[in-house]
Amino acid sequence: MTHVYNFSAGPAVLPREVLEQAAAEMLDWHGSGMSVMEMSHRGPEFISIYEDAVRNLRDLLGVPANYKILFLQGGGIGENAIVPLNLAGLSMAQPATVDFVRTGSWSTKSFQEAARYVQANLAAGPRAGEGYTSIPPQESWQLSKDAAYLHICTNETIDGVEFNFVPTVQGDTPIVADMSSHILSRRVDVSKYGVIFAGAQKNIGPAGLTIVIVREDLLGHALPICPSAFDWKIVADHDSMYNTPPTYGIYIAGLTFQWLQKQGGVAAMEQRNIEKARLLYDALDADDFYQNRVAPDCRSRMNIPFFLRDESLNDKFLAGAKARGLLQLKGHKSVGGMRASIYNAMPIEGVQALVDYLNEFAGR
Amino acid sequence: MTHVYNFSAGPAVLPREVLEQAAAEMLDWHGSGMSVMEMSHRGPEFISIYEDAVRNLRDLLGVPANYKILFLQGGGIGENAIVPLNLAGLSMAQPATVDFVRTGSWSTKSFQEAARYVQANLAAGPRAGEGYTSIPPQESWQLSKDAAYLHICTNETIDGVEFNFVPTVQGDTPIVADMSSHILSRRVDVSKYGVIFAGAQKNIGPAGLTIVIVREDLLGHALPICPSAFDWKIVADHDSMYNTPPTYGIYIAGLTFQWLQKQGGVAAMEQRNIEKARLLYDALDADDFYQNRVAPDCRSRMNIPFFLRDESLNDKFLAGAKARGLLQLKGHKSVGGMRASIYNAMPIEGVQALVDYLNEFAGR
Repeated sequence: MTHVYNFSAGPAVLPREVLEQAAAEMLDWHGSGMSVMEMSHRGPEFISIYEDAVRNLRDLLGVPANYKILFLQGGGIGENAIVPLNLAGLSMAQPATVDFVRTGSWSTKSFQEAARYVQANLAAGPRAGEGYTSIPPQESWQLSKDAAYLHICTNETIDGVEFNFVPTVQGDTPIVADMSSHILSRRVDVSKYGVIFAGAQKNIGPAGLTIVIVREDLLGHALPICPSAFDWKIVADHDSMYNTPPTYGIYIAGLTFQWLQKQGGVAAMEQRNIEKARLLYDALDADDFYQNRVAPDCRSRMNIPFFLRDESLNDKFLAGAKARGLLQLKGHKSVGGMRASIYNAMPIEGVQALVDYLNEFAGR
Repeated sequence: MTHVYNFSAGPAVLPREVLEQAAAEMLDWHGSGMSVMEMSHRGPEFISIYEDAVRNLRDLLGVPANYKILFLQGGGIGENAIVPLNLAGLSMAQPATVDFVRTGSWSTKSFQEAARYVQANLAAGPRAGEGYTSIPPQESWQLSKDAAYLHICTNETIDGVEFNFVPTVQGDTPIVADMSSHILSRRVDVSKYGVIFAGAQKNIGPAGLTIVIVREDLLGHALPICPSAFDWKIVADHDSMYNTPPTYGIYIAGLTFQWLQKQGGVAAMEQRNIEKARLLYDALDADDFYQNRVAPDCRSRMNIPFFLRDESLNDKFLAGAKARGLLQLKGHKSVGGMRASIYNAMPIEGVQALVDYLNEFAGR
């Protein structure tokens, strides 16, 4: 087996122990004679897998009792439509007004897609000619008086911009947070949000599973055009089994949740993630050979884009990295350069191997 | 390991060879050092998996060159909304009229969901007081003059009713066929259909992957309210990578396609499926101890519901079956009784074991 460290932004590295257990149980889960893939979603075997996954996620994130945890399909791009389709009915006025803060590519996509269903208000975004390198100060946000909700992306996978604070909103406007690429990497006060959603394929499991955590009073406000399969109220009323859920993805997610608990939970992971990120940013900041352009107070701990001062060396850098088993370091095509995603499942040894290579390549 | 035969309607039995290969490759696909679950969907490794799966499915079903094969999320219930959202624009009039033939629970669900987006016309359905036990003769269908399309479910998973013919339509009305529970179990002339869709979790792979085969001229007619992630034109233009597809499900589907080719392809599977179904129906028809109520000319080869004459024996029947490793034989809650799903991956030995038990339990 080739030994590699996989810095992909998603689908991404999973804990080795999770994959080992999945391989061992592939043909026969717990003496059932069935693979998890072959189980009816309504049978006792899968129901137990589902219930364990929900309970462990609730425990890991401290999800209050008045929030539902839903397992859906469609990913983040699906949710960009599914969220407004579910929440636009919160507003008396139609089309409803929704506030967006643009801090990178993902919040921008959410803003654009929502405009099909709601009056999308750009409450804050980058200054003209500036890339996504900071979060506009909250006092500059132009929030609407009667917004159905405020949408933010708390970690921008492509741009490497991460929220270190929960925004203050007027009245009881719910905050909807796309946490796809940093869920479970840091502690979060779920009660400050109305909805948290995340595609699984970064910090949780395989692509095709989307997790939605929603406060109960926000259920039941879907527009009539919302497809049943994506109506959170219907999904919640059927314990995520209104349509057949992505059962194998839920199983792998459940194994990841068990692994996280064995690691000491989210608080312990956060400490390790702080350490890993510091190690990498220190190497990037050591001199001007590399550059990360994000403001220090909102640098992501999960997705770290960087540029070589001399970009004509890009191909050589990537080839050398690959030769050392350091994979998927090419930046997203929309921004160029490099990017290292260092999710929960990336061990500090992997970050150290990357740092060693960064130093070597810079001739330090 | 417990030896079982799994008659679940879906998620359902998969070929043992597929599961063995998936287990063996779980931690290291082809020397890449990565699990398929960990691969970027845009990397060369996964692209090769995706392209093989598309090519093999095209080959197995004889999909003409002017049809696109899409890998989506959302399942059959998702497609019940996604189909009208994509095709309603084919009609000059809005709301568009769409014809439905109700032959069971699934076509009924499709009819009900579509009514959110189109004028849903019930072209044919069961007579009052009758269950779903036959397909209304085509001369009785009340087809609309200007339908955007005709929707049928060519195999009703719950009711065990299967089409043995392709309907004749007026002019160039496209036929949309939900083939979820019998795709790849019999030969099909794809060119007779405008759209074929199928959830993977019956004859193909894990739940969470939905396959759409669509004629190219039917792309680009989506309603403005169709979410981008489910707009077939957008998905086709991005080779099913507009959003992150369910990569692991595509990998398993690809292994199943390879397995089918080794078995001799769809024509060879169809012969085996005819043989398996005959074996089971013969046992059910031997006397009146058991009863299948579906008209002989539209009995499903895949999903075979049946009732015990004396329904007070149901629990005893199921307990005895389970003791012999014959699993998931309980009928769908909406119809009661029993159901045996005998998909491609169910070996004839499994059907024989069930037949032996049927005979034993009936005291034959």
